[in-house]
Amino acid sequence: MKEIKDKAREMMKGFCRVCKVCDGKACAGEVPGMGGLGTASSFKNNLSALAEVKLNMRLLHGATEPDCSTKVLGYDLAMPIMAAPIGGVSFNMGGKITEDEYADAVVGGSKAAGVIGCVGDGVPPFIHEAGYAAIDKNDGYGIPFIKPWEGEELEEKFEKAKATGCTTFGVDVDAAGLITLRQMGRPVSPKKPEEIKALIDTVHGWGAKFILKGIMTPDETELAVEVGADAIVVSNHGGRVLDHAPGSAAVLPGIAKAVSGKLDVIVDGGIRDGVDVLKMLALGADAVMIGRPVSIAAVGGLQEGVETYFATLKGQLLQAMVLTGSQTVEDITSRVLFSE
Amino acid sequence: MKEIKDKAREMMKGFCRVCKVCDGKACAGEVPGMGGLGTASSFKNNLSALAEVKLNMRLLHGATEPDCSTKVLGYDLAMPIMAAPIGGVSFNMGGKITEDEYADAVVGGSKAAGVIGCVGDGVPPFIHEAGYAAIDKNDGYGIPFIKPWEGEELEEKFEKAKATGCTTFGVDVDAAGLITLRQMGRPVSPKKPEEIKALIDTVHGWGAKFILKGIMTPDETELAVEVGADAIVVSNHGGRVLDHAPGSAAVLPGIAKAVSGKLDVIVDGGIRDGVDVLKMLALGADAVMIGRPVSIAAVGGLQEGVETYFATLKGQLLQAMVLTGSQTVEDITSRVLFSE
Amino acid sequence: MKEIKDKAREMMKGFCRVCKVCDGKACAGEVPGMGGLGTASSFKNNLSALAEVKLNMRLLHGATEPDCSTKVLGYDLAMPIMAAPIGGVSFNMGGKITEDEYADAVVGGSKAAGVIGCVGDGVPPFIHEAGYAAIDKNDGYGIPFIKPWEGEELEEKFEKAKATGCTTFGVDVDAAGLITLRQMGRPVSPKKPEEIKALIDTVHGWGAKFILKGIMTPDETELAVEVGADAIVVSNHGGRVLDHAPGSAAVLPGIAKAVSGKLDVIVDGGIRDGVDVLKMLALGADAVMIGRPVSIAAVGGLQEGVETYFATLKGQLLQAMVLTGSQTVEDITSRVLFSE
Amino acid sequence: MKEIKDKAREMMKGFCRVCKVCDGKACAGEVPGMGGLGTASSFKNNLSALAEVKLNMRLLHGATEPDCSTKVLGYDLAMPIMAAPIGGVSFNMGGKITEDEYADAVVGGSKAAGVIGCVGDGVPPFIHEAGYAAIDKNDGYGIPFIKPWEGEELEEKFEKAKATGCTTFGVDVDAAGLITLRQMGRPVSPKKPEEIKALIDTVHGWGAKFILKGIMTPDETELAVEVGADAIVVSNHGGRVLDHAPGSAAVLPGIAKAVSGKLDVIVDGGIRDGVDVLKMLALGADAVMIGRPVSIAAVGGLQEGVETYFATLKGQLLQAMVLTGSQTVEDITSRVLFSE
Repeated sequence: MKEIKDKAREMMKGFCRVCKVCDGKACAGEVPGMGGLGTASSFKNNLSALAEVKLNMRLLHGATEPDCSTKVLGYDLAMPIMAAPIGGVSFNMGGKITEDEYADAVVGGSKAAGVIGCVGDGVPPFIHEAGYAAIDKNDGYGIPFIKPWEGEELEEKFEKAKATGCTTFGVDVDAAGLITLRQMGRPVSPKKPEEIKALIDTVHGWGAKFILKGIMTPDETELAVEVGADAIVVSNHGGRVLDHAPGSAAVLPGIAKAVSGKLDVIVDGGIRDGVDVLKMLALGADAVMIGRPVSIAAVGGLQEGVETYFATLKGQLLQAMVLTGSQTVEDITSRVLFSE
Repeated sequence: MKEIKDKAREMMKGFCRVCKVCDGKACAGEVPGMGGLGTASSFKNNLSALAEVKLNMRLLHGATEPDCSTKVLGYDLAMPIMAAPIGGVSFNMGGKITEDEYADAVVGGSKAAGVIGCVGDGVPPFIHEAGYAAIDKNDGYGIPFIKPWEGEELEEKFEKAKATGCTTFGVDVDAAGLITLRQMGRPVSPKKPEEIKALIDTVHGWGAKFILKGIMTPDETELAVEVGADAIVVSNHGGRVLDHAPGSAAVLPGIAKAVSGKLDVIVDGGIRDGVDVLKMLALGADAVMIGRPVSIAAVGGLQEGVETYFATLKGQLLQAMVLTGSQTVEDITSRVLFSE
Repeated sequence: MKEIKDKAREMMKGFCRVCKVCDGKACAGEVPGMGGLGTASSFKNNLSALAEVKLNMRLLHGATEPDCSTKVLGYDLAMPIMAAPIGGVSFNMGGKITEDEYADAVVGGSKAAGVIGCVGDGVPPFIHEAGYAAIDKNDGYGIPFIKPWEGEELEEKFEKAKATGCTTFGVDVDAAGLITLRQMGRPVSPKKPEEIKALIDTVHGWGAKFILKGIMTPDETELAVEVGADAIVVSNHGGRVLDHAPGSAAVLPGIAKAVSGKLDVIVDGGIRDGVDVLKMLALGADAVMIGRPVSIAAVGGLQEGVETYFATLKGQLLQAMVLTGSQTVEDITSRVLFSE
Repeated sequence: MKEIKDKAREMMKGFCRVCKVCDGKACAGEVPGMGGLGTASSFKNNLSALAEVKLNMRLLHGATEPDCSTKVLGYDLAMPIMAAPIGGVSFNMGGKITEDEYADAVVGGSKAAGVIGCVGDGVPPFIHEAGYAAIDKNDGYGIPFIKPWEGEELEEKFEKAKATGCTTFGVDVDAAGLITLRQMGRPVSPKKPEEIKALIDTVHGWGAKFILKGIMTPDETELAVEVGADAIVVSNHGGRVLDHAPGSAAVLPGIAKAVSGKLDVIVDGGIRDGVDVLKMLALGADAVMIGRPVSIAAVGGLQEGVETYFATLKGQLLQAMVLTGSQTVEDITSRVLFSE
């Protein structure tokens, strides 16, 4: 990993410092770039909410060689991890690799590692085009995320995404409120439950599944269940849309309680290593999405970088499972959380 | 804004560093100057009390293009923001622009931005004279704040201020206790409720309104209601009079509860961006006052600087309203506050 | 004060940095010297316990020109402040002034400022001798503190101190546990209640009063009442004897409650300015002792330095009384404390 | 100690900075080396959990010359302290002294100081061989700790250790999860209660005692009692196996409660000075183990370094006993803990 990070630091110069700990401090306010919006408190809250979680170490058990595989949204995953949908290599990451190279690295690297990669959306169009091409190349094994556009653009994007052969579609409603896009004449916006429901019905009509990304409260979780989402992603969009949102790990337990098994709960925000993955599962998630570290691995080492990062995560997750006495992913419950 | 802040940093050299985050750390103890008194803990508490407030992000709704206009004290404001009364450009800000230029920038810039500016008071007399002239030039659209002088000076100032055509008068009782003014033979002091009542009766006799600035406890809020104030400003005077006061955001909910709609609640202290404005409204304020950032904008860019700063605030406030599902200012309630 | 502190910084080089805020961080572990023992956590806890206390600012009242005078242990004091007993100029403060000059500055400066100074004890004997000489020169207006020696040394010291004409005697039991003194053949030790009682009876027989310094728990407060002490000093000895003791402001409320008016409560530990004095009174103290800042003032400006420091404190205390609506020292109660 | 630490800093260059306060910050992630795993949060939590504990200072009593001797696991100890089992001088500490010199310093220095030293295990074999040789040289006065190997290696090690003449054996189950050892074909793993019971029965059959190291929860404490362990060590393995474990001082009270006297409770993690030892006893431990500081003393001064460090600890512990009114180790109870 050191080699990949060193290379990434060189490639992303001026856009990401590839810090020892990726915590939003050095890059506060750098949007575009890899930072959090404003004071970057939402980015930092993701890290600090996770850091407050402590684990019960247990060694008197038989979980010697645990199994971290899982099934999420019908995908058989080697571990409960997905690559988050991120795009805009040129203006966020320095542009030393192309959008196509990036999307290929993320989607291909994820697949090779036994997990699944998501691809992003934005302006200009080559962002989603690169993503869809990567999914296409991987026989539909990848999940396109579409921004909450106003008007026809939304439906058009779904049609385009469908052509990749993918079996799951996502919308990141947390991308709304980007006034800059509105000013460019390409408005994104919050969506009423009935608007989301219409989209979901369409997707279900295709026999596919739908992920609603950007849920941060129990009440909107209940709305997500009502409109028929197959999964939500608990996310403050990496702290890039609203300053002073809580960390996702802080809202996750309340959301998991509100779900009560009616849909899959995915979470992103500040997950850096395998222990963080285990924490999120213990707090109620079914799987996690990882953003910035995957981007850094992709820029620093293309597909091989992504694979290496996922391999590292897997080793850490397995070790954490051993040390908390968790033989399977199902064993990772609140039992592993230390409470004072 | 970057250009304005860079210019301000140059103009205010030795008086204000125009830090990336204006939090009272670098300038602790610099009174006169732009700092907080003593350890500057009251200044810092303003920031930290606000920083502790976290927001519920919500995207499943129809608040796509929110309206942030409001009515406070009879003024139709484009957003619930006022420029705080600050004076003393020469000894607080470096004196590279004149008191007149400063007052014109604040009052004129506020008006142009659809909000309203307040002007300060002090020694020497050109401080309030500059302020009154600016209000006069803007046809009475501005609010004069008068220090709690002892003796005849208080009434004389009110008469002078009245001549500007203004329709609202303020007294910042939190300016009392400035022993230096007493030593200069120009004592300011706390005021008994009956003294404030007499002033308010006079102002009401003129058909004008009265703002009492410097309320930090529920019991004095009740006194403000009893003596007939039209509005209070919850304020620790920017941390410049009493070290170790709580941040205004920490006392605001208790005060808002004590008011129960009987007068308008304005608050200042540590508000830096539009998200902070939304937080203060959610904690119970009807409007906010902003001090140091407006001063920096005025010194760095005169009226245009103030307008630019207010435009930035508006964009941030609107974005925060979208991301918390607040179509109007009235929708910004405790519903948007995250509680652990 | 700036001049005095600059001079002190020069005079105390290698022993005290005369930091902007005297908080025990830079000098951690420097005993001898001016620091706290070990990690200096007890020193730092003194500061942080005080820093956690926040004040209710109130301005709607008539406390315009407050009176901070008080009566403690029969002394009429201009304000509720005493200079703490400190000695050992040569090994703690750099030795650029003599022990005699130091004691004269503290005792004389305190008297001139309308408060009272205490003098310390230690090895070699010139420490207490300098202190007693200073009290003698000031016609007995000063308080000698004697370490809790084992054997005859204790009684001998009391007899010697009596000759100064002083009317109050103190013992700082918190000095016990200094194993180094024991190793030098001059053991100090904790004292059983009956041992303290015998001392107090002797002192009372002389028509004088007795202060027991180093009480940090309610149970030992009750013992102090039982054995007849006229006053206690709540103190962790400036963090110089036991690492990881709480700050004195943290234990003060519990102790004040245990006292219920049966003796005077004096407190030291981290008091730097007049607002800190007001805080300690609000937490239950009748008066405060100030240590390091007085030493710095004495080394930096001799008697004039001490007087200047006390004048500064008085201005700050009076301003804090105005801003909290406290006309007299008796008005400084829990009413002025902000609680979240 | 200063001389020893200076020498150690030179000898351990590149492996340990011998910081003023050994708190896991500078060396975060340095495993191998002396740091904590990953973000080193478990290492840092050990320190912070201890730092949160504050002490009641008491001086009105007769505990003038306290006695800190104790009996643990049948050993008469001059104080309730043991040297933790640590090995791997070459890859953890820089290799400027040999594994034999190191083990001799720890075991011999502990014995000379009236306490007892433990020795570690690992790959390559010279680690345990050096330890066993040191115990042998000291006539069996030392405790071998064996890693939780899979298969025959575990029993073989016990047999080898038995030959040293030792009367107590330990297993650090917290060493499990080291996937690197598994990858080297030398797997360590958690152990089921019945596996531990079999080991304990064997050891008891030899007339010896058994310590189970790495217990961090009350439920595994109860398992330890059930399988017949004579003592447990509450330990997160110095933060070297699982990131984000709580500090041992945070879990100790719950564990001590679960034990209710049925076995001895030893604790390690962040203990640096004699006050820390007193804190751990007050939180419920019967004795403590000290790791990194003993290693530093051994590398910096061989046996003499270890003896000097233990002498320093003893002085600090005795002083802390005087200042908390603890005549014997049994007097160190929750009575000495300050609670807010």
